[in-house]
Amino acid sequence: MNVRTILVEPKNEENIGAVARVVKNFGFSELCLVNPTATGTKAYSVASHAHDVLTAARIEDSIEDAIVNSAIVAGTTSKRGNSVNEHLRMPYLSPCDLKDKVEGKPGVISLLFGREDTGLLNKELMLCDIVVCITTCNIYPVMNLSHAVAILLYELSERDSIQIGPQLASVENKERLFMHLKTFLDEIGYKEYKKDKTLLMLRRILGRAELTAREVQTLRGILRKAEWRIGVGEGQDDNE
Amino acid sequence: MNVRTILVEPKNEENIGAVARVVKNFGFSELCLVNPTATGTKAYSVASHAHDVLTAARIEDSIEDAIVNSAIVAGTTSKRGNSVNEHLRMPYLSPCDLKDKVEGKPGVISLLFGREDTGLLNKELMLCDIVVCITTCNIYPVMNLSHAVAILLYELSERDSIQIGPQLASVENKERLFMHLKTFLDEIGYKEYKKDKTLLMLRRILGRAELTAREVQTLRGILRKAEWRIGVGEGQDDNE
Repeated sequence: MNVRTILVEPKNEENIGAVARVVKNFGFSELCLVNPTATGTKAYSVASHAHDVLTAARIEDSIEDAIVNSAIVAGTTSKRGNSVNEHLRMPYLSPCDLKDKVEGKPGVISLLFGREDTGLLNKELMLCDIVVCITTCNIYPVMNLSHAVAILLYELSERDSIQIGPQLASVENKERLFMHLKTFLDEIGYKEYKKDKTLLMLRRILGRAELTAREVQTLRGILRKAEWRIGVGEGQDDNE
Repeated sequence: MNVRTILVEPKNEENIGAVARVVKNFGFSELCLVNPTATGTKAYSVASHAHDVLTAARIEDSIEDAIVNSAIVAGTTSKRGNSVNEHLRMPYLSPCDLKDKVEGKPGVISLLFGREDTGLLNKELMLCDIVVCITTCNIYPVMNLSHAVAILLYELSERDSIQIGPQLASVENKERLFMHLKTFLDEIGYKEYKKDKTLLMLRRILGRAELTAREVQTLRGILRKAEWRIGVGEGQDDNE
């Protein structure tokens, strides 16, 4: 998905820099500024290692020029529509709904973010295909501009396709650990009448912990080492 | 879920203010600062309408004091573990995994965020039950502190339980619209051999649009008005 982040008349330089940074953090690059304040040293300072995004940012005089060639234009608002009869802000999508709607689609999706104080004007929201609203607390719903961008780009980033975390241990692998624990309880002379209950507790604790294969291996290594120490096992020290 | 946001030795006043704001945006209130820089006018200016969160922020000398009475301590890092053999940062959870793990649990979940430049120290990560990592782009993975807080709190907020958007139209309601469109095509003398294909196209377009009940009603109102104009319908004008 090709996401274009468009800030409409941003007033605060630091916000522009912070947005450039988060654009790069989530692997995007296209930033467009409609009538921004000057983007000077403050913006570059906050952009940190995203100077390139800021330097390449397209400056436009109008939203129409900013959204040119977009397949989808999504406008953001912190003001939710209350009535289904009010078409301007209704129905609105959550950032997650937006991802579901646009994921895998070819073409540019333009995300419009309004001014820090007044957001997008009604006539600007009318240009949008979709209205997006981040569900915040009613007591203080208005987010900082760069925070709103961060959350939208976080949702739209390709994070789901990245395999995170290591492979979990297989059922068989864990079962061998549980059998080993059972043997170990016998070996240390654990009271017979408490054994089943304790084994179940260990199974529950280790189950909740979602062990990796490597962790199972290390735990069994500890058991083997302990068995060696009490003179019952082979004491192979192949782990840790 | 009772979420405590803990910033460890934050250096930048604006970040502290921005974090106070996002804590309030997502309906949380507990902020704890471990050896912060002074939180003066800059922090209050960025906090905007979240002065109360900043004023109530607990200041502590040590992480141990900050996490007191927590049920779960989650440490954040932008540096992912690469090997399952490295326990400090492995396995790590995504913000979404963290939500799944802690949702509905009683007690305090403490979220630890490290310094702007060096993050959490290894010995600080060792105090954590869980390590959380936001999946960012490898080219520039390090997020602004307040952005990282925003994304974590966004994921942990109760947004799922809030009914957003209006009720979608029922199948029956939409079916009445499609029947009405079919009648309308007859009424306007639409070519018979193209009718089925066009009706299917309309069904697909309106299906993708996920119509609300109100929108179905208004579309049928338009059809009725058109029928009245061409002298075939009753022309009730009960919509729009």
